[in-house]
Amino acid sequence: MTRLTPHPDRLFSANPVERDIARRLYSEVASAPIYSPHGHVDASMLVANEAFADPASLLITPDHYVTRLLHSIGVSLDELGLRRNGGEPTASGRSIWRQLSTHWDLFLGTPVRYWFESELSEVFGLTEHPSTANADELYDELVEKLASDAFRPRALFDRFRIAVLATTDDPADDLAAHRTLADDPTFAGRVVPTFRADRYMLPTESTWLAKLDSLASTSGIDCGTYVGLLSALRARRTAFAAAGGTSSDTGVIDAGSEPLATADAERIHRAGIDGSITAGDAAAYRRNMLYQLAAMASDDGLVMQLHPGVLRNHHRPTFDAYGPDTGHDLPDATSFSRPLAPILRDFGTNPTFRLVLFTVDETTFSREIAPLAGFYPSVYAGAPWWFLDTPAGIARYRAAITDSAGFTKTSGFIDDTRAFCSIPARHDMSRRSDATYLASLVATHQISEDDAAGVARRLVADIPIQTFRLG
Amino acid sequence: MTRLTPHPDRLFSANPVERDIARRLYSEVASAPIYSPHGHVDASMLVANEAFADPASLLITPDHYVTRLLHSIGVSLDELGLRRNGGEPTASGRSIWRQLSTHWDLFLGTPVRYWFESELSEVFGLTEHPSTANADELYDELVEKLASDAFRPRALFDRFRIAVLATTDDPADDLAAHRTLADDPTFAGRVVPTFRADRYMLPTESTWLAKLDSLASTSGIDCGTYVGLLSALRARRTAFAAAGGTSSDTGVIDAGSEPLATADAERIHRAGIDGSITAGDAAAYRRNMLYQLAAMASDDGLVMQLHPGVLRNHHRPTFDAYGPDTGHDLPDATSFSRPLAPILRDFGTNPTFRLVLFTVDETTFSREIAPLAGFYPSVYAGAPWWFLDTPAGIARYRAAITDSAGFTKTSGFIDDTRAFCSIPARHDMSRRSDATYLASLVATHQISEDDAAGVARRLVADIPIQTFRLG
Amino acid sequence: MTRLTPHPDRLFSANPVERDIARRLYSEVASAPIYSPHGHVDASMLVANEAFADPASLLITPDHYVTRLLHSIGVSLDELGLRRNGGEPTASGRSIWRQLSTHWDLFLGTPVRYWFESELSEVFGLTEHPSTANADELYDELVEKLASDAFRPRALFDRFRIAVLATTDDPADDLAAHRTLADDPTFAGRVVPTFRADRYMLPTESTWLAKLDSLASTSGIDCGTYVGLLSALRARRTAFAAAGGTSSDTGVIDAGSEPLATADAERIHRAGIDGSITAGDAAAYRRNMLYQLAAMASDDGLVMQLHPGVLRNHHRPTFDAYGPDTGHDLPDATSFSRPLAPILRDFGTNPTFRLVLFTVDETTFSREIAPLAGFYPSVYAGAPWWFLDTPAGIARYRAAITDSAGFTKTSGFIDDTRAFCSIPARHDMSRRSDATYLASLVATHQISEDDAAGVARRLVADIPIQTFRLG
Repeated sequence: MTRLTPHPDRLFSANPVERDIARRLYSEVASAPIYSPHGHVDASMLVANEAFADPASLLITPDHYVTRLLHSIGVSLDELGLRRNGGEPTASGRSIWRQLSTHWDLFLGTPVRYWFESELSEVFGLTEHPSTANADELYDELVEKLASDAFRPRALFDRFRIAVLATTDDPADDLAAHRTLADDPTFAGRVVPTFRADRYMLPTESTWLAKLDSLASTSGIDCGTYVGLLSALRARRTAFAAAGGTSSDTGVIDAGSEPLATADAERIHRAGIDGSITAGDAAAYRRNMLYQLAAMASDDGLVMQLHPGVLRNHHRPTFDAYGPDTGHDLPDATSFSRPLAPILRDFGTNPTFRLVLFTVDETTFSREIAPLAGFYPSVYAGAPWWFLDTPAGIARYRAAITDSAGFTKTSGFIDDTRAFCSIPARHDMSRRSDATYLASLVATHQISEDDAAGVARRLVADIPIQTFRLG
Repeated sequence: MTRLTPHPDRLFSANPVERDIARRLYSEVASAPIYSPHGHVDASMLVANEAFADPASLLITPDHYVTRLLHSIGVSLDELGLRRNGGEPTASGRSIWRQLSTHWDLFLGTPVRYWFESELSEVFGLTEHPSTANADELYDELVEKLASDAFRPRALFDRFRIAVLATTDDPADDLAAHRTLADDPTFAGRVVPTFRADRYMLPTESTWLAKLDSLASTSGIDCGTYVGLLSALRARRTAFAAAGGTSSDTGVIDAGSEPLATADAERIHRAGIDGSITAGDAAAYRRNMLYQLAAMASDDGLVMQLHPGVLRNHHRPTFDAYGPDTGHDLPDATSFSRPLAPILRDFGTNPTFRLVLFTVDETTFSREIAPLAGFYPSVYAGAPWWFLDTPAGIARYRAAITDSAGFTKTSGFIDDTRAFCSIPARHDMSRRSDATYLASLVATHQISEDDAAGVARRLVADIPIQTFRLG
Repeated sequence: MTRLTPHPDRLFSANPVERDIARRLYSEVASAPIYSPHGHVDASMLVANEAFADPASLLITPDHYVTRLLHSIGVSLDELGLRRNGGEPTASGRSIWRQLSTHWDLFLGTPVRYWFESELSEVFGLTEHPSTANADELYDELVEKLASDAFRPRALFDRFRIAVLATTDDPADDLAAHRTLADDPTFAGRVVPTFRADRYMLPTESTWLAKLDSLASTSGIDCGTYVGLLSALRARRTAFAAAGGTSSDTGVIDAGSEPLATADAERIHRAGIDGSITAGDAAAYRRNMLYQLAAMASDDGLVMQLHPGVLRNHHRPTFDAYGPDTGHDLPDATSFSRPLAPILRDFGTNPTFRLVLFTVDETTFSREIAPLAGFYPSVYAGAPWWFLDTPAGIARYRAAITDSAGFTKTSGFIDDTRAFCSIPARHDMSRRSDATYLASLVATHQISEDDAAGVARRLVADIPIQTFRLG
């Protein structure tokens, strides 16, 4: 059994000059409040404020970062608590925890291990690394902690010093949970919705018609026509803004944004409804919708977050059995400058419009995202995302982005997590990684330490506040 | 107000062993003459040798590296002195300088800031960082300096120790300025033209017909036919070589080089003239022209510089108002090995032919450029260019290129600048960056310090001289 | 004349903390046996066990890593001993060695120089760097050594501590050499064949019909039909497994794997035989064959190695004169996630199936290979290959792969060499590079030194043994 003691200098350079600078820079921001402008925590969890059920369903089963790597060595998703064909989970929380503990070494060198170490130590106070030998003992310790009031969602929210938490929400969501939280005098946290309309852009998806119905029901606007759908989306954006929302999010397979004439879009919309739509028309419809969402953002000022280039549900048999978000969404080669030309031509210099670009194809950092952010007032270079949200990924991002876009045109960190308890660990990793990068610039006399400290402070406050209009 | 004192060890590793090696390597080349085989300084500036008008029109307005980043935070191009719709500038030099001074922190960590610090300190002798508070004072100081004889173009040319300066010139240019300089017994500098025929390759561009006329006028050869155009280009290449030129430059959207039968090229040429040309034919014409330029280079020995993969004038409204080179040329994903196959099949092993490949898509460094340069005697790996001409970019270039192409098949540094006063700072950055890279190889015992010193010396002299045939 | 003394700390970080950790990690594996699960050494060389003819034909002429870089500065392939148009070599071994010696500096900073230095010093005991001055002297010394029994293939095999050596073999190979070695009581080494069926996938290649005949002859199964070809390949896989083979290898221009209906494949097969095949059908045939090879692997458990994305024989005139593998195979942009979807959908979670992915397009490390290996139990991230098998390439590979796939889902090192005497140098470079990478994780407190030592040991033993089923 080895001691679980995350080192106070972790991620800082081994070079003593750089390490000492990084320490000082990090100390400026280590305990700063957390702005989380993009994530997948459920607002209703904070409304209910119930104790978490058990360690596995909190820390393992819903976190595809964790389950995918265990799956990659042959642990089945059943053994990790996922529901096959909508049935009940067949693995107990304890057995799921044992899988993680037994395969603890699998995660060596990965951010999952890094986050877990910080989280288990600093949030849960564990003092030993998980192992086959201590799996049951640690599980019992976690169960006991989770039952206490100090580990309820709102208590953790406060303890984590979360200044703003943005959720991700369907346009058809009535935002009741957000209203309840805002109206609750006993909860001081700021929890804001984010408008995510992906499903409405995909008329060949099996869920599209149901989505239109659902949106019509919430908005009171018929979505049987394309023009109706646009009106409903606009109305819901207004409602999201009224509920404190400052941004939208969009995930698409590519960033194509060629607008269609209304008549063409109507025709494709009808073909989507009657099931006669072609693949080419569906792609044209999606690209037009991206353009229309940008047009709305240029009108209403909701910050447009864009995440293109992910092949969703790559392994069809796993999707059929366990559903989406089960670890086989995979990055694709992607691009920004060409496909976004229509949007940027029409809205790129409008002060109301703001576009934050995220990628899982890191070739686009120096080739497209930084050059775009370094010219267009509307464009910001989104933080390294998903597979790239790692110490090495952050280092490559900063090295690739800073040359052409500096720091001011970067978004600040986003954690993008559904793992609530990992939020502080993720932000801490980002702060340490940025301190390390800045220290390298200082130690090589590219910027002064005073300037670096100013940048470090702005990266965790002014920059996310301004980028996501949270002020 | 903070002191502006660029550190003598800037860019060297913070590790003392590496730093000390880098210092020694850098000292070998710090004051070596500058070979600038690719840039955009105007020869007529050296002919006239007039005092520069003011700091802003010298240092800010014409430098899209600077204006683009200010534009990206909402400073309009008008406020930076650009001419809207061909009118007079509306901002005073002083107010433009204030913009830079106020937003000085925007450039932290970027090469623009680095170059500016070196330039303001070492060329202009400023001792304070620009700021809102000292903007007027520093402006006045710069104005006074620029009025003195020591800051006229030829005095700076000498002070910068420029051994060769290559300009970039239209084939229709009569090279009078170059002749005047060459014939002037009071000017010892070597200023050579570079043949750049991009505009003649694009029969759908609005300027194409005027270009043909202009070339016909200079060359005395009718360019109404494709064969005539080729003859005129060949004749001008001969004239460029006679004026001291040793190379051509070509910028294209892709490196496609499939030759056409003459009859097909004539047909497309005619369609270009009568306005009936298709987009497909225009691309075929451009690719054939690239092949023909390579054929000419294989005959006459002008070194062929190739810069593919830039999307020119991405933001159409800015182009319409302010013209080209205004900060929104953007990198595109590009490739070399497939599209250059026709050229390399026919000329790749001809000792007369030489092809220097530049990219703004750094994925091609290890994947294409280094492997090509490591086989074909004609191919050289061009220095990191434009968005990649940064300390971090140079480090990635060397790490990616050296494995497959060593040092001998790299081009040596090119500054590619229209900012005359930044030339020493740019070459100095390159020399420091290469010293840092070589020091890392020495400190990890991959090469000896003697060998590294030899490489450092060759990189600033023999290598550019041989690559660009400047001997 | 400079001393040839590879430094004991070479490749370790210059930072003393990291260097000391790397030393300790390396010492754990420095003398571990070599598993070489992918390479191009000829089994018959070990059967014959004759003294090598001369230094040039052993070390230079057959090694395109070496000849290509000499060719790139204008040394002709004739001068390096290659056979033009199938004729006799025109250069003497001594003159070839002089070429290398004279151009020794060309290789500075490249892995070729690194391997040569280790090999000449540690295998051949040379004490001076090659140079024009000592070329003849060193050549004579090498000739003398090669004539001694200690430098015969089997003696070197033992001295190199090779635990397993995998060769690469045509399905039509009768594997007689492998049987002879296995049956020879005086040879204890394990030499296993690898099934490589590339040529059978390309019905437009001039060699295809002869290949079918040859395979029919060895297998006794008529390959005039597609179904017959599949049967013959299956039979030979069984024979390869019986001869100790544990894996297959496939090199393809892209990883496309869409299966065809049998009738369609038969039709294309016939068109290939009668010469009426189209390029589109040939590509479809190749992609179906990749799928069929995966299906076979999923049945018989031979590990499937896949190397897509190489443009073979880029310079047609060199190919016509000197044949394949002469230094102008070049990397192409490639991808995995999309083209492999059919194979992974059908076999990706089958425990019998195993797929090791190699690339020369390093953008795929973080974007595709690591994410695939981090979900699919069948997929492993192959070691950095060919142009990327360098200290810098290995560092980028580990930094890009570990985040999403850890260490367990990487393949362990493969040397992929036809240069027998470079095998120890190549494995040693890999071990040092991995020690350096692991030391950086330890020094930045991301993993413990104990854990790092465990990983280092697994990387040279358990991991290749398990990945390639050599246990």
